[in-house]
Amino acid sequence: MAMQQNQVNLMPFEKKLQDYLWDHIPISKAMGITVDQAALEQVTLCAPFSNNINHKQTVFGGSLHAVATLACWSLLFLRIKDLNEHYQIVITQSEISYPRPVAQDFKASCQSPSPEDWQTFLRFLEKKGKSRIKLTASIEIDGILCVEYQGTFAAIKD
Amino acid sequence: MAMQQNQVNLMPFEKKLQDYLWDHIPISKAMGITVDQAALEQVTLCAPFSNNINHKQTVFGGSLHAVATLACWSLLFLRIKDLNEHYQIVITQSEISYPRPVAQDFKASCQSPSPEDWQTFLRFLEKKGKSRIKLTASIEIDGILCVEYQGTFAAIKD
Repeated sequence: MAMQQNQVNLMPFEKKLQDYLWDHIPISKAMGITVDQAALEQVTLCAPFSNNINHKQTVFGGSLHAVATLACWSLLFLRIKDLNEHYQIVITQSEISYPRPVAQDFKASCQSPSPEDWQTFLRFLEKKGKSRIKLTASIEIDGILCVEYQGTFAAIKD
Repeated sequence: MAMQQNQVNLMPFEKKLQDYLWDHIPISKAMGITVDQAALEQVTLCAPFSNNINHKQTVFGGSLHAVATLACWSLLFLRIKDLNEHYQIVITQSEISYPRPVAQDFKASCQSPSPEDWQTFLRFLEKKGKSRIKLTASIEIDGILCVEYQGTFAAIKD
């Protein structure tokens, strides 16, 4: 049993995150979401075209939004999981624009917030037990921007 | 065959819309979306808690967004399907806020746009062959607002 536990701990974080999403947010499994990169600087999630197709043979806007949301949520989750206190993450609002359709498998990447924004977020979190931060994600196909997403996420002490 | 065709035509529009969504946007079936009301004045879509649950035992924000998006898309689809020309509907951007969590089966309702906004939309559509309109949807639980959604939808002549 100890060895099994060890093996679990040694799994790459991409695999752990993907298992977590599939186990706890079943629609992420139905969307076929996989984790391409799970680092403090960037989280990139992938999703296949076929699971997320719409009547126009492009990717459904709701799926694009869902994958972008989970990329941002995952980045914040990664960044706060090792703090001394435990925090719940809640999404409070988001905006998305769809400058171009997506008609193939796609990746949504959440970029790291600026060091200033991150420090402000942490300072409030330590002082008040809760804090908010805006995170952005984008979906590009062959270097062309297809989706721009921004979400406001709150962390609240358990 | 004629009789079968007749039967298809006589199906309530709620059933037709649901079949259309499930057939053409498979993730709507995975979300368990059903059509409660499909009228020119309001479209209401339902979705079960279990398919859309997240790690906090509330409904995943991406699912709330997806159901609200489809409620608005469906209302516009209903309103333009009998015009003389055929139009594609494209979503260009949306905003969503989540003032309260949802932790049960839920309904997203898209309300009718104002007559003035609708007439402006139609005027542009006839004149330019394309037009945009903002549509709103909300999710309430026991009369309490949990989700506010606004999307901009474009119709473009085929």
